[in-house]
Amino acid sequence: MGDSMDRRDFLIMAGAAASSTLVHSPGVLAAEQTVHAAEPPDKRLVEDLVAANRVLADQGILDAYGAVSVRHSRVANRFLLSRSLAAELVTAADILEYDFAGEPVNPAGRVSTPERYIHSEIYKVRPDVQCIIHCHTPSLIPFGVTKVPLRPLYHMSYFIAQGVPVYEIRDAGGMTDTFVRDPKLAKALAQVLGDKPAVLQRGHGAVIVGDSMIAAVGRSVYLDINARLQTEAMALGGAVTYLDPEEARKRDSPNVYDRAWELWKRKVTVN
Amino acid sequence: MGDSMDRRDFLIMAGAAASSTLVHSPGVLAAEQTVHAAEPPDKRLVEDLVAANRVLADQGILDAYGAVSVRHSRVANRFLLSRSLAAELVTAADILEYDFAGEPVNPAGRVSTPERYIHSEIYKVRPDVQCIIHCHTPSLIPFGVTKVPLRPLYHMSYFIAQGVPVYEIRDAGGMTDTFVRDPKLAKALAQVLGDKPAVLQRGHGAVIVGDSMIAAVGRSVYLDINARLQTEAMALGGAVTYLDPEEARKRDSPNVYDRAWELWKRKVTVN
Amino acid sequence: MGDSMDRRDFLIMAGAAASSTLVHSPGVLAAEQTVHAAEPPDKRLVEDLVAANRVLADQGILDAYGAVSVRHSRVANRFLLSRSLAAELVTAADILEYDFAGEPVNPAGRVSTPERYIHSEIYKVRPDVQCIIHCHTPSLIPFGVTKVPLRPLYHMSYFIAQGVPVYEIRDAGGMTDTFVRDPKLAKALAQVLGDKPAVLQRGHGAVIVGDSMIAAVGRSVYLDINARLQTEAMALGGAVTYLDPEEARKRDSPNVYDRAWELWKRKVTVN
Amino acid sequence: MGDSMDRRDFLIMAGAAASSTLVHSPGVLAAEQTVHAAEPPDKRLVEDLVAANRVLADQGILDAYGAVSVRHSRVANRFLLSRSLAAELVTAADILEYDFAGEPVNPAGRVSTPERYIHSEIYKVRPDVQCIIHCHTPSLIPFGVTKVPLRPLYHMSYFIAQGVPVYEIRDAGGMTDTFVRDPKLAKALAQVLGDKPAVLQRGHGAVIVGDSMIAAVGRSVYLDINARLQTEAMALGGAVTYLDPEEARKRDSPNVYDRAWELWKRKVTVN
Repeated sequence: MGDSMDRRDFLIMAGAAASSTLVHSPGVLAAEQTVHAAEPPDKRLVEDLVAANRVLADQGILDAYGAVSVRHSRVANRFLLSRSLAAELVTAADILEYDFAGEPVNPAGRVSTPERYIHSEIYKVRPDVQCIIHCHTPSLIPFGVTKVPLRPLYHMSYFIAQGVPVYEIRDAGGMTDTFVRDPKLAKALAQVLGDKPAVLQRGHGAVIVGDSMIAAVGRSVYLDINARLQTEAMALGGAVTYLDPEEARKRDSPNVYDRAWELWKRKVTVN
Repeated sequence: MGDSMDRRDFLIMAGAAASSTLVHSPGVLAAEQTVHAAEPPDKRLVEDLVAANRVLADQGILDAYGAVSVRHSRVANRFLLSRSLAAELVTAADILEYDFAGEPVNPAGRVSTPERYIHSEIYKVRPDVQCIIHCHTPSLIPFGVTKVPLRPLYHMSYFIAQGVPVYEIRDAGGMTDTFVRDPKLAKALAQVLGDKPAVLQRGHGAVIVGDSMIAAVGRSVYLDINARLQTEAMALGGAVTYLDPEEARKRDSPNVYDRAWELWKRKVTVN
Repeated sequence: MGDSMDRRDFLIMAGAAASSTLVHSPGVLAAEQTVHAAEPPDKRLVEDLVAANRVLADQGILDAYGAVSVRHSRVANRFLLSRSLAAELVTAADILEYDFAGEPVNPAGRVSTPERYIHSEIYKVRPDVQCIIHCHTPSLIPFGVTKVPLRPLYHMSYFIAQGVPVYEIRDAGGMTDTFVRDPKLAKALAQVLGDKPAVLQRGHGAVIVGDSMIAAVGRSVYLDINARLQTEAMALGGAVTYLDPEEARKRDSPNVYDRAWELWKRKVTVN
Repeated sequence: MGDSMDRRDFLIMAGAAASSTLVHSPGVLAAEQTVHAAEPPDKRLVEDLVAANRVLADQGILDAYGAVSVRHSRVANRFLLSRSLAAELVTAADILEYDFAGEPVNPAGRVSTPERYIHSEIYKVRPDVQCIIHCHTPSLIPFGVTKVPLRPLYHMSYFIAQGVPVYEIRDAGGMTDTFVRDPKLAKALAQVLGDKPAVLQRGHGAVIVGDSMIAAVGRSVYLDINARLQTEAMALGGAVTYLDPEEARKRDSPNVYDRAWELWKRKVTVN
């Protein structure tokens, strides 16, 4: 498998056009079908992704739009993402596998979201990222359309100290419908994101990443909470004491949102 | 049918008074009864209108008051609207057919809302409009009673770029109870609306229109969200970057709210 | 039972020396006992009062505290009020009858709220009032502790145009726990209320009255909504256009909240 | 029992290190195991603590994090606290007994929260305190990161008149992750709390205490409400009339939140 992956990576990175009749989108080789058939994603990973969809809907991060993806557990240059469907309605049957060109490996008639390139372009350049969430959470919008930067004032939102830049789509694409609909716009978004935990999209939404599904989901929830708290704190007037960068660094830990994930998952399964 | 419709249209447009004993309201001819009996509205249209009522209640757009109507699928100068009843309680049995004079064709004892002329007067002058919502959504009220115009800062609310004027009922009717209770006040409202997607009513509520039921419902929801986000963004202080008119134009598409409608409808039927 | 009740009433009444063994409070005649025995409150009235309790809890007007009373349907100087209990939990068995001294006619061990004198003192001087609500609705508190008067900007809240004064309990009682715990403080509150539809209590809550149960409940809900909308409209900056007093007068009608009551009642019974 | 308790108290207060092999944490003696075995906490107390966990989750005070503890009913220098678990999920099986060193007497594999020292250090120096809540309630955060002090403007929040200081963890611990993770930081927190009903933790949350479980739970709920109302009242502009200290003193009474507790408990058990 190693060889075929190396070759596939090369082709994808170079944006090579495939010539095989089995290829169903540019840059995806017939060989991948074999990989896919041979190594379906871990069943547990699919279950967790379905849970993440429902948690994000239940926590008010995703509404009818937006999506959460996770890197494939067995094939590093693949990721799992639901077909175009509101997160609250997603089941295992709606989860598709995508390659790094942002195309579905086996769509079987299921429609993909036009925003899937956000995921492929970020996974490509962020090997640390295992999960990506694209959302339109209302509380974040004001910070994308003003010059007020999001800053961390709540310990659970410590990761904001790393910076949450704003992506102005007009810089990369001129006048658009504000959707990141192609690899070029997505690549520009990934560049603005850089090595940060999240990026706001002016007038549109945000993208949050994490080195695990729980990290990305937790960051989404606490980015939302921090946005609301910052709005309130600023309304009180006077200076606001934000977390010191060192405090934020010390708060960082791999399992910081585990206890929340346990609760959030229960809320969407037991109830 | 063509001939009788032409004649009926003429009479309605001219505001002609009928003399037949079968007429149960000014401007409605006996001939219409025949049309009505022969061509009941598409059953699916009634089901969708009931769903729209429940969706609008569930999404917080309609409370105990307000209403949603849809143009008749077979008779262009008729529309469907529930009897005076909170949207959350509406069933198919509550849906009445109205003519362009704003009168129910077959009320059978069911009481009509006094605000029905809003619907008849707009359908008359806006052949593109297939669905009309009159609501009292709280978030919209502040923008009707101040000089702050609603402006689009969220991609799903792009249609606001076309402009959302404010109807000052005193300009047309002097001192009233703020209700558009007759064709004259409704005609003035339709004029202020013009070719826009929505109009605010000072101290009262708003009217939102669309070229489909999904368009009007979607606009109602995202008008509400934009109002709240604009309030928050302005509170942060400094300049707000609104959508560029060209961005808004590019965002416009026939199926822009389809995915949301699918979710919203499921929420009021499955749950 | 009568004898023991007389004695208990006697003791309860602050050690007052009753002159008649049948009189159980000043201003209430022995004849009333007969009336009471002969004419229990209309069963439907009790059911409606229970519904009002649940509606007010469901609509967020009453929380664990506060109460709604209704004038007795057969004895004008009596009223019905639940024992001290959160509105959401009230059933018919919790409804007590009170006289105009603010004392329960037949408590049977059930504990009365210390704020019952608010009700008795207002019913005494406001023959037009049939229903009284004492609440601690959060949205109203800021308007009681600042110099910003509540003003109507929403058509359903038209009654605010009559004025909503603020009761400063220190004017009548000096330093207290802010509770209207005796007839003297309640009388002063009734005086500040005057002929208005509602009065705010600084740092405490509000009292809303109506000439019917539906009127008082509707006013409570729309006083709350107006308070929130006024806060938002003022935050937008610039002048606010409030309802013209004549518009408010024209909006006034006996059945203005009937359709809302129908919905609200269904929400607490069917659901 | 008296003798052994006296001795245990002495050892704990002195921070004596135990030498017995049966000791499973510093300051806990083998003898305590006997006490524990002989005097399990009142079953009713455990039930109430489980109810308090669920009430605090239902009322929005505790989310996935934070905790409520209660002093042991039979052993004054012990307290009960759930294992590290979201309050909403806590059952009787999750309740552990802790000593005044902040260590679990019989963890049996159950993981303790690192913030347990907050509880032990406060119980040590506040013999009046029977219940402690550590929460991250969003509304309180802005008052911890600005110079705006929480002040009482609502009668149910009267206890705020005693003062709600802010704990700046950097004063005691320099750069940390903002968690009170050891007895030293907890001792400093207890000192800032002093004899007050609550203390805010800058950028983190708050600690609320009470002389009964109902008092602490009630204070938590009304601290939250007051924070939101104060934000709103200040936004209206102009001076705010806060409760007079004497009014607050007069409002104080042992059973001030009993009626609310009855409702809150019903909401998490019946529903």
